[in-house]
Amino acid sequence: MIRMPDSFRWFTGAAVILGLIACTSNQPANEVPSDVVAKMAAQEAAWNAGDIPSFMEIAYWNDDALLFVGSKGPTFGYQATLNNYLKSYASPEEMGRLHFELIDWKTLGTKHGFLLGRWALDRGVELGNLSGHFTLTWEQKPGVGWVIIADHSS
Amino acid sequence: MIRMPDSFRWFTGAAVILGLIACTSNQPANEVPSDVVAKMAAQEAAWNAGDIPSFMEIAYWNDDALLFVGSKGPTFGYQATLNNYLKSYASPEEMGRLHFELIDWKTLGTKHGFLLGRWALDRGVELGNLSGHFTLTWEQKPGVGWVIIADHSS
Repeated sequence: MIRMPDSFRWFTGAAVILGLIACTSNQPANEVPSDVVAKMAAQEAAWNAGDIPSFMEIAYWNDDALLFVGSKGPTFGYQATLNNYLKSYASPEEMGRLHFELIDWKTLGTKHGFLLGRWALDRGVELGNLSGHFTLTWEQKPGVGWVIIADHSS
Repeated sequence: MIRMPDSFRWFTGAAVILGLIACTSNQPANEVPSDVVAKMAAQEAAWNAGDIPSFMEIAYWNDDALLFVGSKGPTFGYQATLNNYLKSYASPEEMGRLHFELIDWKTLGTKHGFLLGRWALDRGVELGNLSGHFTLTWEQKPGVGWVIIADHSS
């Protein structure tokens, strides 16, 4: 260990403690809400059970104003988004195994949040694996909890 | 003009008037704020003048937490995003002529907003035109107005 003057060691120790306190007090803004973590995990499980309607129902806002932006551009509406999923992933082989990685959460005011993450579909050699990133805009609805009101996946 | 029973014509007229009232009263939530419209137009002008630093400065949050998600995945930070733009569009020919189309605005609480739009770069036959969609998360900062805190462009 490199020797340091006592005052420097004291200062470093205090800085570490202050840093830990700052970290703890910052967490509420950047920690993904447990409801959102649980819904993303339940979505993975539903997808990997081949159940696209449940995958949608778990986390997406059931409304004509739901927005999904994918490689083909924007789609408005829960039913239209569900139809697109069913058309694009018509068999268990095409669905593959889904894995989400949650990267960054931003709380927006009192009722909204933003989640950056990575999605990956393991589909084997023949169909090929797929992966990309998503940004989800969430809103807290009374009695329902957090729901996705906009999904941009690329 | 196709003839209609009088009662139907009255009903249609009333429906049109009610529709107009509903439209007007809904506008505050869905109308793009004038500051955002002005900043998007100024960004187009800066890009088309070949000035990427001004393009960034006009609308992006100057902070290490700025998020840009593009075809290569997420980038954090204003400077890193600027560097990526400068590297990807190193000449006026590569920059081409930019056009934004603003499609949908959602107000999120009191200080945030979400903008869906389309971007198009007219670059001629040799380099090829580019286009796609963006979703921008905006935040109102005191003294600065609306700034983009997250940009997902695909």
